[in-house]
Amino acid sequence: MAQRIAVRQTDDPRVDDFRQLSTADRRPDRPGGRGYVIAEGTVVVRRLLTSRYPVRSLLGVARRIDELEPELAGIDVPAYVTSADAMAEIVGFHLNRGVLAVADRAPQPAVADILRTSEVLAVLEGVGDHENLGALFRNAAALGVGGVLLGPGCSDPLYRRSVRVSMGNVLRVPFAALQPWPDGLTLLKDNGFRIAALTPRVDSVSLRELAAGEGKVALLFGSEGPGLTAEALAAADIAVRIPMTDGVDSLNVATAAAVAFYELAGR
Amino acid sequence: MAQRIAVRQTDDPRVDDFRQLSTADRRPDRPGGRGYVIAEGTVVVRRLLTSRYPVRSLLGVARRIDELEPELAGIDVPAYVTSADAMAEIVGFHLNRGVLAVADRAPQPAVADILRTSEVLAVLEGVGDHENLGALFRNAAALGVGGVLLGPGCSDPLYRRSVRVSMGNVLRVPFAALQPWPDGLTLLKDNGFRIAALTPRVDSVSLRELAAGEGKVALLFGSEGPGLTAEALAAADIAVRIPMTDGVDSLNVATAAAVAFYELAGR
Repeated sequence: MAQRIAVRQTDDPRVDDFRQLSTADRRPDRPGGRGYVIAEGTVVVRRLLTSRYPVRSLLGVARRIDELEPELAGIDVPAYVTSADAMAEIVGFHLNRGVLAVADRAPQPAVADILRTSEVLAVLEGVGDHENLGALFRNAAALGVGGVLLGPGCSDPLYRRSVRVSMGNVLRVPFAALQPWPDGLTLLKDNGFRIAALTPRVDSVSLRELAAGEGKVALLFGSEGPGLTAEALAAADIAVRIPMTDGVDSLNVATAAAVAFYELAGR
Repeated sequence: MAQRIAVRQTDDPRVDDFRQLSTADRRPDRPGGRGYVIAEGTVVVRRLLTSRYPVRSLLGVARRIDELEPELAGIDVPAYVTSADAMAEIVGFHLNRGVLAVADRAPQPAVADILRTSEVLAVLEGVGDHENLGALFRNAAALGVGGVLLGPGCSDPLYRRSVRVSMGNVLRVPFAALQPWPDGLTLLKDNGFRIAALTPRVDSVSLRELAAGEGKVALLFGSEGPGLTAEALAAADIAVRIPMTDGVDSLNVATAAAVAFYELAGR
């Protein structure tokens, strides 16, 4: 049972984990990054409380902590209760979600474990934008993707903004770094995955054609501007495109991923 | 041919259209809103220059104005050239895209005209988030949607942030307000559109089933939290869902729209 503790002084050292979060954000976190896992808002905090990450404490206004009572009943962590103003002072900005939780990081699963439990995987190269990365995890969770493998140039899925944009789904969808790059893709092929590189190239097959086939698929996505590197494209088994109107910029990477996840989930 | 004019004083009244843009952003713009159309960055400025909106002027650093020479050759507007620092002072914040253009608004097309030229339409209710709205237009442009009709509670597609997030596609995909609501939907039915409401309700048919049918379709989307109102759902011909993993929050509205647009474009 979590212990409710009133915090009246904003300099109380017990809430140091929550102090000046946007300054803390400037840490150069990459996969395997440092920094706590921070959840904002009841939906995401609830997801953190039921995740495998060891929760350290919560900080929130009374109403939000009340909402979390069912989840808090089962765990032994301090829940610091304070006012919205004091919270803003501690955190360093106004936070309209009213509750935060902080957890330690935990070791990521082995790539082999993710391969064993997945039919469809996402493999990312150069997806460095935290919001795109978070949105992609949200779409992966909604559309049945078994895991996300991170190649070079990807940012840290456990970064605060990614956690928020993913609606906490970075805490549920397994992920791991894939090294070396792109040779690590061989391990996927050895485990029966067909590697499909999403690219607007005209010599690619349509996504629907890919989905008409059977078997396990690893969908390979590059960053929005430059796309996949030549090395990554060369390592793929097949190049796949989402048919699009001429002259329109390609879709946002998380959106393209959602379309591909949807098409493969419908097989 | 656009005329290049060097601006050395940040208080030059000729660049008043660009002054303190984030303050100007606080205007309560709604469809039919006031305020100029503002494009940021070469990609979006280029799109504005080739749109039907009457461009008033440009403001940019020399390098960006140079990039736009081909498009500027054909039009007679002033292109104010200044330094990045002066630009930041005029605009009120640092703008890393280096060029802006401003245009007057123009009358929107009649709903009847949009219906005549579309096979697939998006109809929105309560999509008030500017970024979601912009992203939805980007997806509509990429995936062949003929137009967007705006029900109550939608924000203004020509608001600066929506223009930017849409990559300028709000300037290309026709849109109009649909009134009265939801009775205006009758006009769509009279013109042969089947009205398909996207909703996670379990008694809905899958998106794939909808796409298996023929004929013109108007896809009806609500806002991300509350979804469509009972009135809008009642006015639809069919309720449609994107099959999703249990326990995951529904997709972002622009992402759900992309999936639906994709599925219908593939017929």
